[in-house]
Amino acid sequence: MPTRRGSAMRIALLGGTGDIGQGLALRWAYDTDHEIRIGSRDDERGEAKAEEYETELLSRGRDREIAGGGNEAMTESADVVVLSIPPYYAADTVEAVADALDDGAIVVSPAVGMERDDDGNFRYAPPPAGSVTEHVAAAVPGRATLVGAFHTLPADRLANLDAELGFDTLLVGDDGDAKRTIADLAEQIVGLRAVDAGGLANSAGVESVTPLLINIARNNEGMHDLGVEFK
Amino acid sequence: MPTRRGSAMRIALLGGTGDIGQGLALRWAYDTDHEIRIGSRDDERGEAKAEEYETELLSRGRDREIAGGGNEAMTESADVVVLSIPPYYAADTVEAVADALDDGAIVVSPAVGMERDDDGNFRYAPPPAGSVTEHVAAAVPGRATLVGAFHTLPADRLANLDAELGFDTLLVGDDGDAKRTIADLAEQIVGLRAVDAGGLANSAGVESVTPLLINIARNNEGMHDLGVEFK
Repeated sequence: MPTRRGSAMRIALLGGTGDIGQGLALRWAYDTDHEIRIGSRDDERGEAKAEEYETELLSRGRDREIAGGGNEAMTESADVVVLSIPPYYAADTVEAVADALDDGAIVVSPAVGMERDDDGNFRYAPPPAGSVTEHVAAAVPGRATLVGAFHTLPADRLANLDAELGFDTLLVGDDGDAKRTIADLAEQIVGLRAVDAGGLANSAGVESVTPLLINIARNNEGMHDLGVEFK
Repeated sequence: MPTRRGSAMRIALLGGTGDIGQGLALRWAYDTDHEIRIGSRDDERGEAKAEEYETELLSRGRDREIAGGGNEAMTESADVVVLSIPPYYAADTVEAVADALDDGAIVVSPAVGMERDDDGNFRYAPPPAGSVTEHVAAAVPGRATLVGAFHTLPADRLANLDAELGFDTLLVGDDGDAKRTIADLAEQIVGLRAVDAGGLANSAGVESVTPLLINIARNNEGMHDLGVEFK
């Protein structure tokens, strides 16, 4: 599979109505000309959010058409399908849309398994597969590919187009071409650098950074909604 | 225990003959006026390394006296004892020098448990205590305190006084005053910022960053000997 650098792509954000999906939708719509689609379990909610994003982008002088609807409809003929979905539903969502996945589609998993202890500290809590990324990868049909990315991005800052980013996103995946395609897409967001963290076997190490970022924000005044840069 | 900001302290670096201990010794000796002591299991090796560091510092116009000797002798009356020792020997070293530890001494553990898989990827491999930091903490006698710090610093860059740092070190510990003392010492190294990652219970999340940094260096051209900044 060739990398698709340069040409416009269809990006479906399942669960694109909130969390990291909102920020990715707004940033890609603002910073690139890729086709953006907002998926939800609830068709109307997907449509309503897509309209909301169009309005916000228009208020910033960016006249963009954003599609919205059910997860399965948004997945059809998408080049890239991002799962902005809580970790325990991510694999189920892949199964629910599997028939709609195009040959060669790239599924992107940013989900992380965490739990909170009695003192309010967050801990990495991976499923038996070793990581959420690997758990989700097992649900992706053979004609598609899974790449792990965007695990460590601060959702609120990403969704605030006034906020500068200036940090990294880590990518894991066993298909180098698919990983490069997602790296290119990531770097088309202004202020985001894609860093290769290796194969899916390395994904637990990537996911572990997310609870650490939350613990750091809890323990340091003036540090919140953190990203990370490797230097 | 009050924080000791401002006053000169005695810092013993056990295993200060290499790895992160070398960089910390050189940086603290160059950037501060704290008393620096280099400990080794082998007295003569400790002395020889201390002389080597003095020579390097003098070549940079910094005339410093650095003590060197056996781990136990260097630990006596030290305010801070840094364990620059492989993870599987760190707790044993604490036990070997325990009688020499001063009341109120702060022991600092930067060690991380890692293993390498057949593909050369590094994985975080904590001991049954949950992390190396907690494993070492259990060996520290009650009159002293353990702080985890310096886990994620790149050893070669730290030891090269021509290299600029510009990244963070994460601190974990259950004694806030001891942690602030080590945070102050860390920030007296030019280009290093101390970031509080919470109590010892959070140390596995901190240690997990080290194998990730190695995997990133293995997978990205031009990225090596990496540090990390939270932003």
